Amino acid sequence: MMIVKIGGGAAINHEAIAADLAALSGPMILVHGANAERDRLAEALDKPKRVVTSISGFDSVLADEESLGVMMMAYSGLVNKQLVACLRRHGINALGLSGIDGGLITGRRNKGIRTMQNGKKVMLRDLSGKPETINVALLRLLLDAGYVPVITVPILDETGVPVSTENDDIVALLHQELAADRIVQLIEAPGLLADPSDPNSLVPSLASAELPAWQERVGGRMKRKIMSLQKLFKNTQPTVFIADGRANNPVSAALAGSGTCIY
Amino acid sequence: MMIVKIGGGAAINHEAIAADLAALSGPMILVHGANAERDRLAEALDKPKRVVTSISGFDSVLADEESLGVMMMAYSGLVNKQLVACLRRHGINALGLSGIDGGLITGRRNKGIRTMQNGKKVMLRDLSGKPETINVALLRLLLDAGYVPVITVPILDETGVPVSTENDDIVALLHQELAADRIVQLIEAPGLLADPSDPNSLVPSLASAELPAWQERVGGRMKRKIMSLQKLFKNTQPTVFIADGRANNPVSAALAGSGTCIY
Repeated sequence: MMIVKIGGGAAINHEAIAADLAALSGPMILVHGANAERDRLAEALDKPKRVVTSISGFDSVLADEESLGVMMMAYSGLVNKQLVACLRRHGINALGLSGIDGGLITGRRNKGIRTMQNGKKVMLRDLSGKPETINVALLRLLLDAGYVPVITVPILDETGVPVSTENDDIVALLHQELAADRIVQLIEAPGLLADPSDPNSLVPSLASAELPAWQERVGGRMKRKIMSLQKLFKNTQPTVFIADGRANNPVSAALAGSGTCIY
Repeated sequence: MMIVKIGGGAAINHEAIAADLAALSGPMILVHGANAERDRLAEALDKPKRVVTSISGFDSVLADEESLGVMMMAYSGLVNKQLVACLRRHGINALGLSGIDGGLITGRRNKGIRTMQNGKKVMLRDLSGKPETINVALLRLLLDAGYVPVITVPILDETGVPVSTENDDIVALLHQELAADRIVQLIEAPGLLADPSDPNSLVPSLASAELPAWQERVGGRMKRKIMSLQKLFKNTQPTVFIADGRANNPVSAALAGSGTCIY
C-alpha cells in the first residue's frame, strides 16, 4: 500500500502527478490539500481568515461556519473533482471522498482557544478537530473493487458536524490502519531543507531515530511537520519520501530518492 | 428501489427531508440540485451567467470553465457535503458522489449553440452534455454495503472532461438502469400545477398516458419538465410523486399523495 499526500500549493503539478501515478502499480490512497484555492476563494468572497491570539501568545486561524463553507467548496468541490477528473483521464480509477462521505473520517472537536477579551477569559471554540477513526471497511470495499480513493477534508466531529483538520493527521491515521510501506509527500520544495530559506540545503536522507533531535532544533511550522512525521514511525517502519510536487515524474522521482527519504 | 430528486431551491428543507427519509426503509438513491447556492456564489464572485441567443432565437446559458468551477464548488462541494452530513446526523448512511467520482456518470458533450456574430455563423461549444452511461457496478457495490449514494453534477464527457447536465436526465438514466418502483421529486411548489402562477391549481394525479397532451398544452420550462417525465415511463411503470420539498415530512407526505402522483 502506498499513501500519496499531495500538497495544496498553487504550483503543485496535478497533470504530472497523474501521468506518473498511472505508470505505477499496486493499491494506493491519495490525500490532497487545496490551500491555494481556498485562500483565492476566500479573498474573492472577501472572507479573510480570522486569526485570534491565545492567552499563551499563539496565533490561530479560527474556523467559523463561513470559512468551513469555503473549505468545502475549495477542497471537496473544486480541487477534489478537478484532481479526480485529471487522474481518470490518465487511466487511474479515482473516486473522490471527503471525510464526511460514508462517515469516512470521524474525530473529536478541538476544545477551543483560550483568549482574553475585555479583561475576561473567553474560550473560543471553532470548527476544527483531530481525526480519530477511519471507516476502513469503506476503503477496503473501494480498494478491492479497483478504485483509488482521493481523500480530502472536512471530517466529522463526534456530533456529526463537519470540521476542518490537518492532512498530516489524516495521513498518520490512514497509515496506522492500513500500514502503508511507502508514504510519499509532494510539496512545493525539493524536500526537507536543513535551512528552510535555502533550497540548496536539501537533506537527502534521514533515519527516523534522528527526528526527535530535529524537532528540538527547528521552529515554527517545521516543528509541527517533524512531530507529524514521527507519528508515522510510531509502531511501524514505512519509508517516507518528501519531494517536489512541481517536478516532472514527481512520484517516481521521489521514490528514486530525488527528495528526502526517511527510513 | 426509490430515487429521490431534491431540488436546489433555497427553501428546500434538508433537515425535514433527512428526518423523514430516516424513517423509511429499503434501498434509495438521492440526486440533488444546488441552483440557489450556485447563483448566490456566482453573484458573490461577480461571475454572472453568460446567456447567448441562438440563430433560431432560443436563449441558453453558456457553461464555460469558470461557471463549471462555480458549479463544482456549489454542487459537489458545499451542498453535497452539507446534505450528506445532515443525512448522516439523522442516521442515514449517506455517501456523496459527483458524476466524476469512480466514473459514475459519463455522457456526450453537446454539439454547441449556433449563433450569429458580426454577420458570421459561429458554433459556440460549452461544457454541457447529456448523460449516457452509469457505473451501475459502483452503485450496487455501495448499495449492497448499506450506503445511500447522494449524487450530483458534474458528469464526465466522452473525453473525460467535466461537464454540466440536467438532473432530470440523470434521474431518467438511473431509473433506466435500476428500475425504481418509486421516484420522488421534491420541488418548491405543492406539485404539478395546471396553472404555474396559481398554487391552488395542484393536479393531484395524472396517468402517464396523459403526459403527451400536457406537453402540447404547456410552454417554457414546464414543457421540458413534462418531456423528462415521459422518459421515466418509457419501458417501465414506476409511480412518480412530485411534491413540496419545503414541507414537514416531505417524502412520506409525497408518498401519501400530498402532491402530484403520476402512474
